[in-house]
Amino acid sequence: MAFDAIETPFGKVNQITGGSATYAAYAACNFVKPVQQISIIGSDFPKEEMDEMKSRGIMLDGVEIVKDKKSFFWSGKYHEDMNNRDTLVTDLNVLADFDPHIPDSYQGAEFLMLGNLMPKLQLNVIQELKQRPKLIVMDTMNYWMESAMEDLSIVLKHVDLLLVNDAEARQLTGQFSLVKAAKSILQMGPKYLIIKKGEHGALLFHGDEVFYAPALPLEDVFDPTGAGDTFAGGFIGYLAKTKDISFENMKTAIIVGSAMASFCVEKFGATRLKEISKQEIDIRIRQFKELISFDIELV
Amino acid sequence: MAFDAIETPFGKVNQITGGSATYAAYAACNFVKPVQQISIIGSDFPKEEMDEMKSRGIMLDGVEIVKDKKSFFWSGKYHEDMNNRDTLVTDLNVLADFDPHIPDSYQGAEFLMLGNLMPKLQLNVIQELKQRPKLIVMDTMNYWMESAMEDLSIVLKHVDLLLVNDAEARQLTGQFSLVKAAKSILQMGPKYLIIKKGEHGALLFHGDEVFYAPALPLEDVFDPTGAGDTFAGGFIGYLAKTKDISFENMKTAIIVGSAMASFCVEKFGATRLKEISKQEIDIRIRQFKELISFDIELV
Repeated sequence: MAFDAIETPFGKVNQITGGSATYAAYAACNFVKPVQQISIIGSDFPKEEMDEMKSRGIMLDGVEIVKDKKSFFWSGKYHEDMNNRDTLVTDLNVLADFDPHIPDSYQGAEFLMLGNLMPKLQLNVIQELKQRPKLIVMDTMNYWMESAMEDLSIVLKHVDLLLVNDAEARQLTGQFSLVKAAKSILQMGPKYLIIKKGEHGALLFHGDEVFYAPALPLEDVFDPTGAGDTFAGGFIGYLAKTKDISFENMKTAIIVGSAMASFCVEKFGATRLKEISKQEIDIRIRQFKELISFDIELV
Repeated sequence: MAFDAIETPFGKVNQITGGSATYAAYAACNFVKPVQQISIIGSDFPKEEMDEMKSRGIMLDGVEIVKDKKSFFWSGKYHEDMNNRDTLVTDLNVLADFDPHIPDSYQGAEFLMLGNLMPKLQLNVIQELKQRPKLIVMDTMNYWMESAMEDLSIVLKHVDLLLVNDAEARQLTGQFSLVKAAKSILQMGPKYLIIKKGEHGALLFHGDEVFYAPALPLEDVFDPTGAGDTFAGGFIGYLAKTKDISFENMKTAIIVGSAMASFCVEKFGATRLKEISKQEIDIRIRQFKELISFDIELV
């Protein structure tokens, strides 16, 4: 949970609440409650945002508030090609001393989403849970592959599903072909792998099976910040709602995640995620169905 | 119809028959016969290749053979990222004087595929047909946008469907968003637009409707040469077989085209296209269906 300053070709915002956990929770709470948040913030994090989260069934027992310190701050600028961005500022602030712990009230959680963070801390969270969750999903990034690969390898052995983008899948394996990269990753620990390709959709791999979820072709991507975390939140939120972790159900969950991400990018930060109704989500998911439906009987 | 020399990370071939029309015809003849070819070749073009084509129902009445001249020759090199290639040599040879004419035996054709060529020549072909085809599909490239935009604009007003890749759609319209680019192009003449995105699949636009066809995730793309032309040939071949040019049927046709393209890239040139059976094509099309099927009823 953090602050972002964002510039896109469509506008600029100097301070908006963001952070992986914020996006993931705002997406997941449309499908399952409570969402049990673990994070760290400074005393500058707005009470209104926390009230908003609580009102949506997002528990904050696991969110540590550090007095007289500042929340994590990230500032970035996007160009016309929204797949690339320049990071202008990264102020770790409270995140520098983050030592996440699981409150007793969270014990017994069946679905665990590990946001992108130092692998050692992700492992701590897994090990603090007295009962292994039914599904552990993990996000990570190239930075940890370069600076903490040993720890990352260990966490990978403890998770069920890894979530990375195409460049990260290639970096993690040294394989250019995503199909080959997927095969390698599925031997590193996770039984499932999702490779996110931004505007080109996402691929889900499991054994020899593969599923391709498109991204919705949008007129404008106003602000892509948080789209990946929103995708993850929608994905695991839907799985937690249906309590079905089969490959078949994961396909639907990916479409749900993609639908949530397609809302996220319509306005700055998580603004749009706080506006959408159940009905809008249903309509969007149906759009995805229409986008890829064709009649095979004719062939 | 031409010769290519191709180098990919997987190997090298010094002379192999190629050319848009060759790929498109080898793909289309799986679905409809005869395929009526219009092209120009030199006396160096192998008789065996022409016999092979004829045996597959590809008519060559419209293929001009120029004695003592050489066929068009292209040489290129692909890098690991198969979306980009370096052109090493382009020898126009016979193509420099190409003035395509429609043989009487071709009159009455209902489906016309205009391969990538000088727009003025594409227009000539349209105008030589005494009866307007049911569907005119046109391919083009950035080169003509830079050197013959005026002619290109005219041809666009005469065709039903334009086939370009994402970079070309952006260049043609000055719009970065593919959705916005599609809207612009649909006002230039064509009622249908296909934007090819290589390994990321293809988009079909018509009015406010859009369809997304994935590309099959492949372990290796051995040689992408001709994949776009093969896609076009499979697409229009399937439409010609079914004689149904509705948006719904075009969706299936795009999947058929994508399936044919996925075979094309498995070996050098058109080698693989000459090997595949009806059964292999059916299985491949089913793989596409499985790749994108999910159960919306669960949401």
